[in-house]
Amino acid sequence: MAQLLIMYNRPQDPEAFERYYFDTHVPIFAKAPGIQSVVFSRPPITTVAGQSDVYLVAEVTFASMGTLEAALASEAGQAAVADLPNFAAAGVTILAFEMRS
Amino acid sequence: MAQLLIMYNRPQDPEAFERYYFDTHVPIFAKAPGIQSVVFSRPPITTVAGQSDVYLVAEVTFASMGTLEAALASEAGQAAVADLPNFAAAGVTILAFEMRS
Repeated sequence: MAQLLIMYNRPQDPEAFERYYFDTHVPIFAKAPGIQSVVFSRPPITTVAGQSDVYLVAEVTFASMGTLEAALASEAGQAAVADLPNFAAAGVTILAFEMRS
Repeated sequence: MAQLLIMYNRPQDPEAFERYYFDTHVPIFAKAPGIQSVVFSRPPITTVAGQSDVYLVAEVTFASMGTLEAALASEAGQAAVADLPNFAAAGVTILAFEMRS
């Protein structure tokens, strides 16, 4: 199992961000092959020190790093990466890793 | 459902970090009430730009933010937080959030 962990920084306009994210961005990436499950955080995200700079977390699970990499390399994956500047100007951190069983 | 997302920065000595983390730290926090499941990343963690500064990700799932907060406030939770300086000198980011169903 492998996971793509995507963390979006707090946008200037959270309402517009959510609308674009769920109505446009997620459907683009959802066409990528091999996605097993997706989990989204609900705001607010907190830390021990209070509210976090991270506004939204998405965790996308794949069977393996190979299928994860194939999803990113697919037409839908490339379109999703190209779409990031359209709504994630506040910044985004994307990590990919295998999960220990 | 709620999640505690813990991201450890790359330690100076990964082998010593892993040993302390899995042999000492995880068993401390594992005694906290309400933990439903835990997932750990396997190194290396990659980004689109190459290797990440994050060395290890742990995702701890709870039934709700209430049970998550109760786990952190428990004796085991407080002991786990107090244990962080013993092995996570390179830095750690801890996020807590509800998951959208």
